[in-house]
Amino acid sequence: MGKVRTILLNQSVLADNDGEAQRLREELKEKGTFLINVMSSPGAGKTTLLVGLINRLKEHISAGVMEADIDSDVDAVRVAEKTGCKSIQLHTGGMCHLDAQMTRQGLEGLDGLPRLIFLENVGNLVCPAEYDTGAHLDAVLLSVPEGDDKPLKYPLVFQKCGLVIITKTDAGDYFPFDLQKCIRNIRLRNPRADILPVSAKTGEGMRELSEYILNKINGKEKT
Amino acid sequence: MGKVRTILLNQSVLADNDGEAQRLREELKEKGTFLINVMSSPGAGKTTLLVGLINRLKEHISAGVMEADIDSDVDAVRVAEKTGCKSIQLHTGGMCHLDAQMTRQGLEGLDGLPRLIFLENVGNLVCPAEYDTGAHLDAVLLSVPEGDDKPLKYPLVFQKCGLVIITKTDAGDYFPFDLQKCIRNIRLRNPRADILPVSAKTGEGMRELSEYILNKINGKEKT
Repeated sequence: MGKVRTILLNQSVLADNDGEAQRLREELKEKGTFLINVMSSPGAGKTTLLVGLINRLKEHISAGVMEADIDSDVDAVRVAEKTGCKSIQLHTGGMCHLDAQMTRQGLEGLDGLPRLIFLENVGNLVCPAEYDTGAHLDAVLLSVPEGDDKPLKYPLVFQKCGLVIITKTDAGDYFPFDLQKCIRNIRLRNPRADILPVSAKTGEGMRELSEYILNKINGKEKT
Repeated sequence: MGKVRTILLNQSVLADNDGEAQRLREELKEKGTFLINVMSSPGAGKTTLLVGLINRLKEHISAGVMEADIDSDVDAVRVAEKTGCKSIQLHTGGMCHLDAQMTRQGLEGLDGLPRLIFLENVGNLVCPAEYDTGAHLDAVLLSVPEGDDKPLKYPLVFQKCGLVIITKTDAGDYFPFDLQKCIRNIRLRNPRADILPVSAKTGEGMRELSEYILNKINGKEKT
């Protein structure tokens, strides 16, 4: 098993999370680091997707991962072993989300800032959407087995994100998931979000997603 | 489309949720109603399972459902249409969980108390576990596509529940899910929880689950 550092995050005391998030976003931009906040339900495939993505991206760009979990070090070890990239485990101590100050604590533990950092948020479609982490891009994963109605039931995370990644598309024949209906449901919440369907298992859509991220980093950062 | 009543829940102001939950549990017991709190990730199959269960149980017992959602009436309408049972939609107004006072508001809107009530909590493996709803049985669903490691990553909900229902077992060949490993992971969190694998799609395990619930109601209620 690879060794990864684990940090137990302190609960934030800042009243002004939005201000702290904006400061963090600007600081990272000055240092040339692009931060992507990755949100989803438990088991939507965040870690598997990140492993596949980083292995595609690493010839172009240095990347790192911060894995937030209430408990366990499963994900950070897995990412470190399978990609060789900088990886750190953040324990939230029971907290259901990350905010900007917790994100900053994670970044300080990461031992240098690569060009691209993925923040894998706690698996939860509700609470993480309420807190700006300071990321330049908020991405939400929706997996095919969860169902195409989820944007109707968890509105805020779909409203706030810049990118929806529909994962496990290889399971499309197995579950009653209607991609066009899902896209319509996302559009009800968010007319502007980019939507990319992928399968980390078969590789479908992974090239497009890698290119999308490289384009974001190289030109169109949220400021 | 069937008509179901929708209630927008008021946020609770009670400091003593545990006391309110205990009072509610005792009141329901006196009235002969057994309440099951059903928790899971988004898309783990709560509503589909409840439809299948209620259709099996309804020749033995009167049942009702309270569907909690941040938004949308999809679930309550679906349950009412497919089972004909009493069904009510609870909107949490953005809240990520239910507590005992919110549960009480739902019960007051249900128009009479059947012998068995399912409370479908907000799809979230984190926050609902922190609040006693007053239920006699806390059940958590873990679906095969989510992965067998979830008890390691979302400890509290597995620690606190009395029953783990492993859903979508029909997808076992499609996803890398190891049932024995999953059971060991649940046991690390909770040596006493009952564990029942089911597939609402094929019917596997549904008879056992129905009998389990009838036995709970008829003899072994949590008090």
